[in-house]
Order: sequence, then C-alpha cells, then structure tokens
Amino acid sequence: MPDFTPTPRSRVKRLNQRALYDTETVHRLIDEIGTGSVGYVIEGQPYVTPTLVWREGERLYWHGSSASRMLKTVRGGVPVCVNVFHLDGLVLARSGMHSSVNYRSVSLFGNAALVEGDAAKEASLKAFLDRFVPGRWDDLRPVNQQELKATMVVSMTIEEASAKVRTGHCADDEEDYALDIWAGIVPIRTVIGEPESDPRNKPGLTPPAYLDTVAIG
Amino acid sequence: MPDFTPTPRSRVKRLNQRALYDTETVHRLIDEIGTGSVGYVIEGQPYVTPTLVWREGERLYWHGSSASRMLKTVRGGVPVCVNVFHLDGLVLARSGMHSSVNYRSVSLFGNAALVEGDAAKEASLKAFLDRFVPGRWDDLRPVNQQELKATMVVSMTIEEASAKVRTGHCADDEEDYALDIWAGIVPIRTVIGEPESDPRNKPGLTPPAYLDTVAIG
Repeated sequence: MPDFTPTPRSRVKRLNQRALYDTETVHRLIDEIGTGSVGYVIEGQPYVTPTLVWREGERLYWHGSSASRMLKTVRGGVPVCVNVFHLDGLVLARSGMHSSVNYRSVSLFGNAALVEGDAAKEASLKAFLDRFVPGRWDDLRPVNQQELKATMVVSMTIEEASAKVRTGHCADDEEDYALDIWAGIVPIRTVIGEPESDPRNKPGLTPPAYLDTVAIG
Repeated sequence: MPDFTPTPRSRVKRLNQRALYDTETVHRLIDEIGTGSVGYVIEGQPYVTPTLVWREGERLYWHGSSASRMLKTVRGGVPVCVNVFHLDGLVLARSGMHSSVNYRSVSLFGNAALVEGDAAKEASLKAFLDRFVPGRWDDLRPVNQQELKATMVVSMTIEEASAKVRTGHCADDEEDYALDIWAGIVPIRTVIGEPESDPRNKPGLTPPAYLDTVAIG
C-alpha cells in the first residue's frame, strides 16, 4: 500500500520531526479517534462542522441529514479538509516556551462524493455503526426507505494526508532543568462511561455486552 | 450584553430546536471545552488546524509558532471559522434513524488579528496558561524577548456565533418503544489523569496543587 506523498497542501511546516505520512499511521489515527472536523468553503467563507468519521479501506466516510448544509456542499465534489484530533495531555515545562500538549492529529484532503443507491447507503450505515458500537446494527429495527432517503452518506478518497503526533515530556532549555520548578504531564483521556438506560425501555432489558467494546478517542 | 444575531452564515439549518445564539451559552461552551478547530482558506483550499483556544471578553484567542502556516494566514484578517466541540455520548435508539450523539458545539465566525507588542503578547500568554493551568504562569522561568518573538498570538472578535447542544435520551418512533431493544446513552467524558512527573525533575519536587483545577472538555 503506497504511503502519502506530501505536497505544499499537506506538508507539515512546523515541527516537522513530528510529521508522519505513512498509510498505517494515518489509518490508525482515523480508526482510533473517530471524531472529525470537516472544513469546506462556501463563497470564500470557511466552515468547520464536527462529525463522526469512519474509514473503509482508502476512503473516509461521514454521514448526516439530507438537509445538512455541510453535506449538501461537500457532495458537490468541492475540496474538503477533514482534521481528526485528540488531545492527550498538557506538557508542563519549566518555561512557557517549552510548555506544550501531547496529541494525535491527522489532516485528510480530498473531494467528497455521495454514496448512491439504497443498498450501498445501508451498507455504509451498518459499517458506521459497527465502527462505533460493534454488533448494534443487527439488534435494531430495520431501516426503511424513507429513513434512507432522509440520510446522506458521503465518502472521500484520501488523496493526501499528514499526521502529527506528540508524546512524552517537555524538552526544556538545558539550564532550566536546574530550576526548582516541577515539570511533567497532565494526561487527558476520553473515557467511556457506564451505560444509562432509557427510562422507556421495556422491563427486563439490560445493556448489551457489546457496549463494552465501544472505543473512541 | 447583546446576543448574537444569526445570518445565513451562522444560522443553524438542521434541527434548529438545538440551536442557541445567546452570548452566555456561546461563552460558556468556549470556556468549558478549551479545544478548537480553526478553519481557513488558502487559494480556495480549506484547512482545519486544531489548537487550544481561550476567551477574553468578546474575543477568542489562540497562539502558536511564528512559523505556523495557520497563524501566518489568519493574521492577515481573512475570514475564519473556529468550531469548538465536545462529544458527550452515544445515544442508542431502537432504530438507526434515531440513534444520535450528545454533544456541545459552537461555531465562531470572524477575522483574526495579531496581538501586537511584547507586553500585550505576554499578557495574553499569561491569560492562556491561567485558563488551562491556573497559577502555573507565576511558577515559570520568565519569558524572554526571543521567545516572545518566536510566538504568535491571534485574537478574533466573535462577530457571529451559533451553538448547538444535544442532551438526553433518544426520541424513537412511538411504535418502536414496544420493541425488545435496549436503548440508552453511552456517556463519553474527558478525564484529567494523575500528573506524571518529568524524570528530570529536581529531587523533592512534587506536583503543584493547582493541577487539581485543570478543566478541559
């Protein structure tokens, strides 16, 4: 599988020792994090819309209502940038200058297209739910045609991608290590909580075991 | 304090019963969440850069290296959209259609400008650190002029803003409540972990008490 080749659009300018362009890293970050910020342009004005994203092979997917401005715009094949990001910690140095954050970030560039046809759309929605709540789709009341019509799924071939990851402690100026200042990391984690049952559930229903497999962030 | 007036740029199109334009909500979401996705345009191509954001009065701030492409672009006064978002839970309905997510989101529109002058820049950086690690700034080795030069701070008057918040359980089709399908919420939370000390700390240094006040997400 070929890796991504940075161009002026996707090449990381700042701290490029943190930059990664290999397919495995790009795909892994998308698969781990699960949230994305979709950037698009309407008449020169940028917009950023947050959404859940998932991947099938070389393509990034997201979905929404057929009435969504974001989806109506990006389905037209305009240039799109999707940033997938997770903040992993505050890195507290002995100076402001070297204080930093740990994070995982990947920017994905391409042009989105509609997933067309009820069967393809339904398969995508199943893949979506399987990403976030594996096993859930098969438990649900089947989707109907009216619901499919009200839902839009788009996908984007990832033409270019650049990932940027920071881990570990600060890199302070050498002389600052002698200062009596505590330095370290304040970790930040996304945690999946205990399921809260809908008060309108039928008596006797309990949270399904597959909820333990939910992984985001 | 006047609230934000939605225009075609900022009016929430979809599920507009979730939309909020009042200043108090917009400011509260910025202050709570702390991360933002900065959207900007270079020659028709959208870019989205994640960063930490903070607020002083009516203005949104963020910072970075003077070499940052994002900052070099937005300091020119071009239109910017910053989305501040937190995913709060998966809302599992009895149908795919009514499955949803709980979240807090606010999109902020304006034009960014450089914070100019060493004193103003330093005051902004102090405000930044006070937002994320209250009390930290005063512990640090003082910033020097070379470091200030290497750092860029921008601020943006929030000209327009629209917030969108979803909480609570699903709203299923009435007949689906009779189905033997568990429904509920899988909460998603950002958790601040225990501080990890830099192995190069001087002996005897312990994590400062103000780390307990870190709040993000």
